[in-house]
Amino acid sequence: MVDVPELVAQAREGRPRAVARLISLVEGASPQLREVMAQLAPLTGGAYVVGLTGSPGVGKSTSTSALVTAYRRAGKRVGVLAVDPSSPFSGGALLGDRVRMSDHASDPGVYIRSMATRGHLGGLAWSAPQAIRVLDAAGCDVILVETVGVGQSEVEIASQADTSVVLLAPGMGDGIQAAKAGILEIGDVYVVNKADRDGADATARELNHMLGLGEARGPGDWRPPIVKTVAARSEGIDELVEALEKHHAWMAEHGVLGERRLARAAREVETIAVTALRERIGDLHGDRRLSALAGRIIGGELDPYAAADELVAGLTGE
Amino acid sequence: MVDVPELVAQAREGRPRAVARLISLVEGASPQLREVMAQLAPLTGGAYVVGLTGSPGVGKSTSTSALVTAYRRAGKRVGVLAVDPSSPFSGGALLGDRVRMSDHASDPGVYIRSMATRGHLGGLAWSAPQAIRVLDAAGCDVILVETVGVGQSEVEIASQADTSVVLLAPGMGDGIQAAKAGILEIGDVYVVNKADRDGADATARELNHMLGLGEARGPGDWRPPIVKTVAARSEGIDELVEALEKHHAWMAEHGVLGERRLARAAREVETIAVTALRERIGDLHGDRRLSALAGRIIGGELDPYAAADELVAGLTGE
Repeated sequence: MVDVPELVAQAREGRPRAVARLISLVEGASPQLREVMAQLAPLTGGAYVVGLTGSPGVGKSTSTSALVTAYRRAGKRVGVLAVDPSSPFSGGALLGDRVRMSDHASDPGVYIRSMATRGHLGGLAWSAPQAIRVLDAAGCDVILVETVGVGQSEVEIASQADTSVVLLAPGMGDGIQAAKAGILEIGDVYVVNKADRDGADATARELNHMLGLGEARGPGDWRPPIVKTVAARSEGIDELVEALEKHHAWMAEHGVLGERRLARAAREVETIAVTALRERIGDLHGDRRLSALAGRIIGGELDPYAAADELVAGLTGE
Repeated sequence: MVDVPELVAQAREGRPRAVARLISLVEGASPQLREVMAQLAPLTGGAYVVGLTGSPGVGKSTSTSALVTAYRRAGKRVGVLAVDPSSPFSGGALLGDRVRMSDHASDPGVYIRSMATRGHLGGLAWSAPQAIRVLDAAGCDVILVETVGVGQSEVEIASQADTSVVLLAPGMGDGIQAAKAGILEIGDVYVVNKADRDGADATARELNHMLGLGEARGPGDWRPPIVKTVAARSEGIDELVEALEKHHAWMAEHGVLGERRLARAAREVETIAVTALRERIGDLHGDRRLSALAGRIIGGELDPYAAADELVAGLTGE
């Protein structure tokens, strides 16, 4: 058994191996998961969680890396959670990016974790909030969560940050694609990266137009800014940090930060509860009941709803 | 109230509006959902479900369109379910593709449905199988399910087809990216599309190498073929159809088709049951209980696991 209090103490001192160990414990749903979570509870709430999302190729990882550098310069401890299997943080993608990342690898003020768990019970919606909780309790001031803005689970994770940053890059139809992918709705701050390329102004204009089409905003409402960056050369990153700080301050002032965190906690509880119930159903897999029901469905005797009713009734004792 | 038996009869005659109406009923979780599903149950099981997945830009929609043409030429009724918000089937993407799709729009033997429901309770994992069930009951011989192979839910849907086709295109790191994205494991048939481009042979070789690295196969085992296509010119599509037919026949011969469908039905039941339980938890949202629990989490008093235990205990009457 792991000495959890000792591990938590080490994580708070910024020891990367202790942080890694804690995340593995919560990711792997170890028997000590509950002990870890109980220990972390009073230590959380200090981190500012920023989600970065966008289609593949818009420069999410490069932007994340540039933000890490900027926050480190300001003396902040930074956690990075990369929920993108093609991210250089996950070891994928291009060599150039990977080299750029390794700048941070030796910095004790930065903790980088890649998360590409597929097929896990409850999946990313379950494991990402747990990992954020560990990074928060370990004393990170800022946590950057990078997700590819394509999948449903991935967009959900991004939308649960304190501040959601949606990245675009110049190129035909990008704005439209983003809208279709449902990520345009979730942005608190928009970034047009690779702004030195042709079409950057057009992309920003198109984006501005689409955002303006939403309902009218009141005087106290947040108007998502559009920041132009060339992340590979760190251009516009100070402006991005400033936009994030403004949003953070606006949320704090208007009670939005508390509301969002309340909603996030409620959702986290819901996901864990559903996962627990799913596990109980999963326990029936070995059992004859579920496969007998499935057999009757294949045979056309039963429809999946009637079968699900039988399962739920068995579970809740109705 | 809708006259469900009449609607089902019309759908089986191939009337697209009846099919559309049925899918809307099951997608929207209407009060008549259960009646619809019960009516469909004895009519399902005739369709061969093919999943097509791959990264954005590999040519999934063009390949799907070419397959539709090939199957139509063979006199089959074809259903297309596009679970990809950037697919031309969904109205996104390029004009050229959209024009190509409209060839099928006027063909009564083809039913095309786009599905980009986000934020729906249970999400794609819940709604895609229901729509497949409608297309199956409506008499489609082949159902092509197109998903972008990036998100977790999307890959799960693709992996639940009778046959899963994974598409790649020549280009740096494509193979590696696919492996990282977890889609390489699920292919029964692989396609290297845009095979007239530089690097097509290298991509096929790399893919062959990666697939060969898996465990040794027995004499009766399925060896996933790699088919080269130029879908935009319909090149290689006959070979792809042949590969699909071979896989279909192999599955039928070795009992794999029945096994897969049994697993799919079990999973479908599980998803519906979990969604039902999630709805019950969701009913607590208006209630003070969940928000009180969330408030205690934010305050650092309680961890999400302990909170979830309370919720589950309330639900199952423990």
